[in-house]
Amino acid sequence: MSIVVRHIDRADPATVARLGRAGVATAHEAQGRTGLMSSRMRPIQQDRAIAGTAVTISAPPGDNWMIHVAIEQLREGDIMVLAPTAPCDMGYFGDLLATSAMARGCRALVIDAGVRDTRDLRAMGFLVWSTAVSAQGTVKETLGSVNVPIVCAGAHVSPGDVILADDDGVCVVPRARADEVAAAAETRLAAEEEKRARLAAGELGLDIYGMRERLAAKGLTYV
Amino acid sequence: MSIVVRHIDRADPATVARLGRAGVATAHEAQGRTGLMSSRMRPIQQDRAIAGTAVTISAPPGDNWMIHVAIEQLREGDIMVLAPTAPCDMGYFGDLLATSAMARGCRALVIDAGVRDTRDLRAMGFLVWSTAVSAQGTVKETLGSVNVPIVCAGAHVSPGDVILADDDGVCVVPRARADEVAAAAETRLAAEEEKRARLAAGELGLDIYGMRERLAAKGLTYV
Amino acid sequence: MSIVVRHIDRADPATVARLGRAGVATAHEAQGRTGLMSSRMRPIQQDRAIAGTAVTISAPPGDNWMIHVAIEQLREGDIMVLAPTAPCDMGYFGDLLATSAMARGCRALVIDAGVRDTRDLRAMGFLVWSTAVSAQGTVKETLGSVNVPIVCAGAHVSPGDVILADDDGVCVVPRARADEVAAAAETRLAAEEEKRARLAAGELGLDIYGMRERLAAKGLTYV
Amino acid sequence: MSIVVRHIDRADPATVARLGRAGVATAHEAQGRTGLMSSRMRPIQQDRAIAGTAVTISAPPGDNWMIHVAIEQLREGDIMVLAPTAPCDMGYFGDLLATSAMARGCRALVIDAGVRDTRDLRAMGFLVWSTAVSAQGTVKETLGSVNVPIVCAGAHVSPGDVILADDDGVCVVPRARADEVAAAAETRLAAEEEKRARLAAGELGLDIYGMRERLAAKGLTYV
Amino acid sequence: MSIVVRHIDRADPATVARLGRAGVATAHEAQGRTGLMSSRMRPIQQDRAIAGTAVTISAPPGDNWMIHVAIEQLREGDIMVLAPTAPCDMGYFGDLLATSAMARGCRALVIDAGVRDTRDLRAMGFLVWSTAVSAQGTVKETLGSVNVPIVCAGAHVSPGDVILADDDGVCVVPRARADEVAAAAETRLAAEEEKRARLAAGELGLDIYGMRERLAAKGLTYV
Amino acid sequence: MSIVVRHIDRADPATVARLGRAGVATAHEAQGRTGLMSSRMRPIQQDRAIAGTAVTISAPPGDNWMIHVAIEQLREGDIMVLAPTAPCDMGYFGDLLATSAMARGCRALVIDAGVRDTRDLRAMGFLVWSTAVSAQGTVKETLGSVNVPIVCAGAHVSPGDVILADDDGVCVVPRARADEVAAAAETRLAAEEEKRARLAAGELGLDIYGMRERLAAKGLTYV
Repeated sequence: MSIVVRHIDRADPATVARLGRAGVATAHEAQGRTGLMSSRMRPIQQDRAIAGTAVTISAPPGDNWMIHVAIEQLREGDIMVLAPTAPCDMGYFGDLLATSAMARGCRALVIDAGVRDTRDLRAMGFLVWSTAVSAQGTVKETLGSVNVPIVCAGAHVSPGDVILADDDGVCVVPRARADEVAAAAETRLAAEEEKRARLAAGELGLDIYGMRERLAAKGLTYV
Repeated sequence: MSIVVRHIDRADPATVARLGRAGVATAHEAQGRTGLMSSRMRPIQQDRAIAGTAVTISAPPGDNWMIHVAIEQLREGDIMVLAPTAPCDMGYFGDLLATSAMARGCRALVIDAGVRDTRDLRAMGFLVWSTAVSAQGTVKETLGSVNVPIVCAGAHVSPGDVILADDDGVCVVPRARADEVAAAAETRLAAEEEKRARLAAGELGLDIYGMRERLAAKGLTYV
Repeated sequence: MSIVVRHIDRADPATVARLGRAGVATAHEAQGRTGLMSSRMRPIQQDRAIAGTAVTISAPPGDNWMIHVAIEQLREGDIMVLAPTAPCDMGYFGDLLATSAMARGCRALVIDAGVRDTRDLRAMGFLVWSTAVSAQGTVKETLGSVNVPIVCAGAHVSPGDVILADDDGVCVVPRARADEVAAAAETRLAAEEEKRARLAAGELGLDIYGMRERLAAKGLTYV
Repeated sequence: MSIVVRHIDRADPATVARLGRAGVATAHEAQGRTGLMSSRMRPIQQDRAIAGTAVTISAPPGDNWMIHVAIEQLREGDIMVLAPTAPCDMGYFGDLLATSAMARGCRALVIDAGVRDTRDLRAMGFLVWSTAVSAQGTVKETLGSVNVPIVCAGAHVSPGDVILADDDGVCVVPRARADEVAAAAETRLAAEEEKRARLAAGELGLDIYGMRERLAAKGLTYV
Repeated sequence: MSIVVRHIDRADPATVARLGRAGVATAHEAQGRTGLMSSRMRPIQQDRAIAGTAVTISAPPGDNWMIHVAIEQLREGDIMVLAPTAPCDMGYFGDLLATSAMARGCRALVIDAGVRDTRDLRAMGFLVWSTAVSAQGTVKETLGSVNVPIVCAGAHVSPGDVILADDDGVCVVPRARADEVAAAAETRLAAEEEKRARLAAGELGLDIYGMRERLAAKGLTYV
Repeated sequence: MSIVVRHIDRADPATVARLGRAGVATAHEAQGRTGLMSSRMRPIQQDRAIAGTAVTISAPPGDNWMIHVAIEQLREGDIMVLAPTAPCDMGYFGDLLATSAMARGCRALVIDAGVRDTRDLRAMGFLVWSTAVSAQGTVKETLGSVNVPIVCAGAHVSPGDVILADDDGVCVVPRARADEVAAAAETRLAAEEEKRARLAAGELGLDIYGMRERLAAKGLTYV
């Protein structure tokens, strides 16, 4: 039951880049508010964002052997996404594994578990979103799988899906919907740009969005 | 039962400024250790502090409609304080609402719920203290109230009260007590200044505060 | 039962410095994965590390009196380690106590409780690892002990033990094992350096560590 | 600033009894979904409910002295409601204090902190809702206040207010609104009774509440 | 995007019953340690177990409208499984909805959110596994979906899958694997029965499982 | 570094029994408020208490192999105390291991991790205090130690120490202090008995403990 899928279909890099420009919050809205990972998933760095294609890892609790296996499958632009098969806060990943992953063109990890060497990782520019930071090491005893569908921090991820991550969290856009969501996100961005200018000029959302009537109908009273 | 109070009495700006110089920890001490919000309330930025007057928002869980309503009531120097009527981690607030609030002179939000677009908010210099960060959006379906008394992260806040926020958390100083607390805080600051110089010079708190006798009386034994 | 032990045996400063160069994750590995504090223990600053000798404080919940007592026992290179006798998130420590501790050559605090004045502490360069940040002050009513063995955030600490702290957390190395662990850590560092170069050049961990055969034997299947 | 208010206006016992029959969920609905304490507030017993009038206690963290003071103020039908001035999980209350409280006609405690002797308390029939269970004892060193307004587990409580507690949690009904809320709750109970009979007979909420049209209008699609 | 799937393929009732006899822990082992929901999912009753087929509900946070829609789709032996689209602790479900569900042959709910009226639910014999208990009510404003694949408390659930729930938690067995897992579980149960008799008679696991040699080889030392 | 200590000095059974009659809260007070485990340690049963001598287990996260090893070391009256070397919520222990432990005279487990088969354990009368309940199974791959000093849920436990556990939590009494603590606990129990009678008769703690004067001196004001 432990497998490594070597050939996966990845989302188109141009589409990934378009989604990356939209960011997590906008892309999440654009795909109908689905795909967001739990807010327990936090960045170890600040003010950085990334978009890439998922190479997924299903690993036993406290065992990081499969990360070595997964690194061989990485290509330029991939993001590793690891879900342990039981809750685990241990430090699965540090600067040596990051060095190896970067050598293959991967620049980020999303992990529903812990990482360590966080200062080195920041210095290297390798981005991490994790649910814990812990120096506690792991073993290499039990198999898992690479490039199978997983549930990571409450979101379903298939290999090749688009992963978006920034200071607001992590969002998954299924490969099949990536083009459609990118288009919807760009429409939203354009609309936001126009709204931002009007709001900055002092216009109120109450007027821009025409809310006053509906608020009154619901019974809002000014005193 | 959904109301917007348009005219509120705000604490005096000069007093607000004096309290702002004292900071959260000192002002909290100065008013008898009351008014502190829960330590779940954390800043999204570092090494920034603010003081202002509260415009309060009571909002349903997952519904940010009342923020639009509240923005119209903002004046220079106000801080929005939002408490949901049930626990909620969703992202009520992002860069568009911040743009609108800043256009009216408001520079901070205190919210017992989530925010998003945190990188943009930091870049804009809009300060936020929240209990969550989440890209998860909200709806605009149900009414709440603006400028009514609320309980936010365990502290009672009335409209017009002084809100102090820095890296240590958030503290509320009731408007009626603001002058008295500002005076007491300034007395503490002066005393601390003198203590700091003596401590930096190597004197011990045991001697400065005359603690040795009381420690011995309680039974402390040196071995 | 409240005592202050004035004469303690401290780990050798040269050994402390060697362990400091290894850092938390490597030293933790080098001593057989023991001595790590809970991952609830987090730094209030980023990208800073320290190594020192423990002066321990056992304090009642919400009472910081013993910190004043402990400061008198500090020497150059010490780190204060405080465990409350019951869980407590209150702010035991702020800039005045840090001023006093620095005057005696102490540059860090590890505390299974809260601290305040965190911005000032960062500005002063006084390092803190804590389990909470809170402006809530404490009292000076009940005795505790200084330089007795304590359990802090799940780790056993004796006075004079080596404390290592960085962005990954806090690790305790017992004084009696410090030399042996420093040597083991240095061996690990050297081995890591060589591995890092090979990984950066694109070699795979699967090959460097000779994992392929064992993975196959366990039943890993490539599809 | 430490006071004991001896004469408080209590809600009418007949109204308290009517609210007690409604229970927490129904009364909470009947007063517009306000007054509910945090879901961290849990009973130490199962399948028991109570209604009474609040005697409030504001106590320092880890100090239960004010409970002795409050007991003297208790009357038949009162419920003690204690909020610490800083978060605290220690065991403020055990079987001796319960014995004393029962001797004065009080049969329940609501506390945003810990209790101990829980087996004895259950055996005595003294009901407790708390946010922690802990054997950790407290001290009697610092004053607090009795019968002042407090914020307990996120809800505002004034002395004499109605406290409702059952397996769903704890709800506060302000004394001034007690009659109105009791009447609204009874209307809801009657309506629920009729609904329950129809639902038990197999009718669907979709039909009883006429939801099908509005669902279709919003775009719900059956496939 | 809001749909109700009316015709779903349910796992065979005989297989469901076989899995029910195995229980959560054994079935979870039998299917390779997959499908377990988070341990945050706790029963509101004790010493009760159930097995059934999933009718899934994807609902907005704080909105229980879709439960009414789902009840019409229930058949004898179904278990409702609800995942909110954002984290939410509110009370989605109480005794009236349980009355309606029971009238259609459903006897349990699994929900990654809160429930209320828990005493009534226990008295009715309606079983609930939830991540919260809260009297806080919900609204009926926004659509969701019924009988679509969902992620509930970290586990993937498709409509018609087998749901097993007991005091140890909740496990999902995909419909397509139900027969195979039931057979594997029965094999485990038989083996356990034989082991239990030997262990009760005083034989040691060290001998029954032949562990002594492997322990010695790994380096275990008796002193 | 993995060892099993076969011969340990156990506290005297008569002393254990005396401490058992005192219970957790009283014994904890009697030994100066030390030795209490974290309140995260909760019983899986209600209204049951036990006292015994500790057989300690240090186990890797997610690996229960050492429990098999420990069972061979058990004697009548022992309680197993397990601390994982890193935080772990998995289910280390179920009904088969309990059957084996009971065959050797052990009737309880204290574990800073998860257990499963909780309904069976309750039915068997095997008592458990744990920090989690989880059906998630463990492996048998890595060694740990038996009967070495451990830190369990924040408390230091040496083999042979007295373990007290009831609904209030778990307390450790060091073997060397057991007699002294038992005597102090009995003194407290006798004093409590007399106090209980007076409190039940309506006397106030304010008078029994002579608190009125000290309260007035501290400034308590009655209004």
